[in-house]
Amino acid sequence: MSSTTMTLDDCRALDREDPLRNLRDQFTLPEGVIYLDGNSLGVLPKSAPARIAEVVTKEWGEGLIRSWNTASWFDLPQRLGDKVARLIGAAPGEVVCTDSTSINLYKVLFAALSQVAQSGSNRKVVVSERSNFPTDLYIAESLCRERGFTLKLIEAADLAASLTDEVAVLMLTHVNYRTGAMHDMKAVTTAAHAAGALTVWDLAHSAGAVPVALNECDADFAVGCSYKYLNGGPGAPAFVWVHTRHAGQFEQPLSGWWGHAAPFEFTPHYRPAPGVSRYLCGTQPIVSLAGLECGLDTVLAAEAFNNGFGSMAALRTKSLALTDAFITLVEARCPDRFALVTPRDHAQRGSQVSLAMADAAEADANAAYAIVQALIARGVIGDFRAGDAQMPHILRFGFTPLYLGFEDVWHSVEHIVQVLETEEWKRPEFNRKNAVT
Amino acid sequence: MSSTTMTLDDCRALDREDPLRNLRDQFTLPEGVIYLDGNSLGVLPKSAPARIAEVVTKEWGEGLIRSWNTASWFDLPQRLGDKVARLIGAAPGEVVCTDSTSINLYKVLFAALSQVAQSGSNRKVVVSERSNFPTDLYIAESLCRERGFTLKLIEAADLAASLTDEVAVLMLTHVNYRTGAMHDMKAVTTAAHAAGALTVWDLAHSAGAVPVALNECDADFAVGCSYKYLNGGPGAPAFVWVHTRHAGQFEQPLSGWWGHAAPFEFTPHYRPAPGVSRYLCGTQPIVSLAGLECGLDTVLAAEAFNNGFGSMAALRTKSLALTDAFITLVEARCPDRFALVTPRDHAQRGSQVSLAMADAAEADANAAYAIVQALIARGVIGDFRAGDAQMPHILRFGFTPLYLGFEDVWHSVEHIVQVLETEEWKRPEFNRKNAVT
Repeated sequence: MSSTTMTLDDCRALDREDPLRNLRDQFTLPEGVIYLDGNSLGVLPKSAPARIAEVVTKEWGEGLIRSWNTASWFDLPQRLGDKVARLIGAAPGEVVCTDSTSINLYKVLFAALSQVAQSGSNRKVVVSERSNFPTDLYIAESLCRERGFTLKLIEAADLAASLTDEVAVLMLTHVNYRTGAMHDMKAVTTAAHAAGALTVWDLAHSAGAVPVALNECDADFAVGCSYKYLNGGPGAPAFVWVHTRHAGQFEQPLSGWWGHAAPFEFTPHYRPAPGVSRYLCGTQPIVSLAGLECGLDTVLAAEAFNNGFGSMAALRTKSLALTDAFITLVEARCPDRFALVTPRDHAQRGSQVSLAMADAAEADANAAYAIVQALIARGVIGDFRAGDAQMPHILRFGFTPLYLGFEDVWHSVEHIVQVLETEEWKRPEFNRKNAVT
Repeated sequence: MSSTTMTLDDCRALDREDPLRNLRDQFTLPEGVIYLDGNSLGVLPKSAPARIAEVVTKEWGEGLIRSWNTASWFDLPQRLGDKVARLIGAAPGEVVCTDSTSINLYKVLFAALSQVAQSGSNRKVVVSERSNFPTDLYIAESLCRERGFTLKLIEAADLAASLTDEVAVLMLTHVNYRTGAMHDMKAVTTAAHAAGALTVWDLAHSAGAVPVALNECDADFAVGCSYKYLNGGPGAPAFVWVHTRHAGQFEQPLSGWWGHAAPFEFTPHYRPAPGVSRYLCGTQPIVSLAGLECGLDTVLAAEAFNNGFGSMAALRTKSLALTDAFITLVEARCPDRFALVTPRDHAQRGSQVSLAMADAAEADANAAYAIVQALIARGVIGDFRAGDAQMPHILRFGFTPLYLGFEDVWHSVEHIVQVLETEEWKRPEFNRKNAVT
């Protein structure tokens, strides 16, 4: 259909034809909200309250210390890791759920730098993108300084040229948190390896959002977040994957007892567990891990629709259709008001759409910020990310195919149209100068 | 009363006179269980299921991303840290609740070693106890190797002699997890400082168990666990304290965005937050943190009984009375069967009692292990910790004055007597050779 003729009825028809439409029933969605921020915090699986209550009252309250064995608390990082593995093209036993993304990045980047140093290489540069999520850069900055490496920040366009013979590690986030632009993991990994560099991938905006094939891409290390598209709950533990050719070979420095080969022998010297289990450190928050399992199961429920194309294929098809519809409707109904920041090319797009103000006079922080605030007041929850001299201020909208439909897209754009037409976004309460934070 | 005349009625009288007896009503205790393992995993506060359900269904389910501000999720590490501070002799703003004990130890030991290195000192030794909890030693082992230090493991008796002019850091656990022996924090810290060394204290078996006065003792760094005597729930986040003279001065290497001075400016370079907040790294598990707050409140409820002697005084008085009663009854009713591993001297005792088998023929692993298993089968839950050439196998019993009474002590010993008299511990199902783990 052409952009001028896409109507609410068209969107309803797309929803009726959507094979994944019933997956939404897995979630509790608040009344009156269109939630376009699942890229920041995923929604509540209906199964989570009862499962978490069971862990609290039965496993903790009644089982007490016995539950480490009887409720298999000890195995949770590996058991949940095996579920994550199905979503990122990894094999059972290659992923553990533990700690935060930042901490896991520290572990794998440390291991990667150790491998480079131990190989006798003179490579002393870690390359990343200037627009990478800041915590990744902070961790790399500290680690590079400590280990005698240099962190070099580049623009995405300069990626190929940056892969010189000085580069030890290429550390990238697969899908950019601001723009939603996605790297070609296979091509980039192949280029990095050809240049003699290892790859570290952050899958924070990829896991559960786009197909990922870590083993097929021959990636080296990966970490990711569980509370965005994996619906694990606020601050649920992150995950870490290491290619089997590296997993058993290098020690990560957070050498706590959960990563020991025999933690309950209580021996005074560290002996790392085989494989990825050595990337565990201390005791994990069991109640939050229980919530994560409910979230993972909501995504894995989509496997039934995939016809052998990998666990994420059906979700990806719907995700692209949703973001296509949003782009089409915004451009048709708000002509010349927004510039599309997210790539139009499917191969380069994650599961979000980021917009900047098109008009130079409106491209200040306040217009983008205020429109997002006005939308939130109407129950359309996206978010604002401030820009700087090199990056525009953006309105960010995440599209989670598990619980969003085409009618949601239509209503979101309708609200944007109304916020603009009524100039409601110019109200003082939406002005960034009046923001409490 | 003399040991030969302590009866069940005596214990009941002590319970009636106990000013803290009603604090037990704060907890859900399983039927038919005497829980002597609160030193490993504390019991469930009655308030926790409802509070956790509220966080899950209202704050996560309805508030969604908005709850980071509206439900004050961002402030939880500091707000809960202020509650911990009241239990360990620290001031508001000096403690944050985050990550695991192992990871927090890495942060503070790294900061301590950085301080030594930056001072131009040639000190290159970190001293700890061979019988320290292994994960502390594993973390120190890795960090010392990485930073060019040597980890020297000593016996407690050799502590004073070990403080040579080569020692950079003395890293100790305040109360030993096996023996329950407690260091004199003030004397040891003073001696360490006199010898030119910094101190790092692990309070895993101290916080909520014994009075701790970090500032009064002039300690340098401390970490601790929240799921033991603080009843925070399985794997709840740990805590970290840094003396104000160090807190704003040294960077810890896990430099994630939560420790940034302005995390939501999303700037590409790291700028540490002032004070102890720089010891934060990544996003924290909010659901588990909510459980922790319920646990902290159960301990703080004892503040009302303290008559100005610090927040832990009343709990300490009862804890010593409970462990005294247990020792007295075991020695009176099981003469010559056990050797007391925990110090008899109050000043050196934590809130647990550890026993070894007295008879050489019974001092093998199986006797201690099997007696613990037989007691667990009877609902008296303690635990077994294996020994080695230098340390005996032990039966470990934790006494948590918040929810245990003197009658519990009496029944525990009665069960021990019966397990011994009936030789029930010799049954095959309690034999360590048949253990599943």
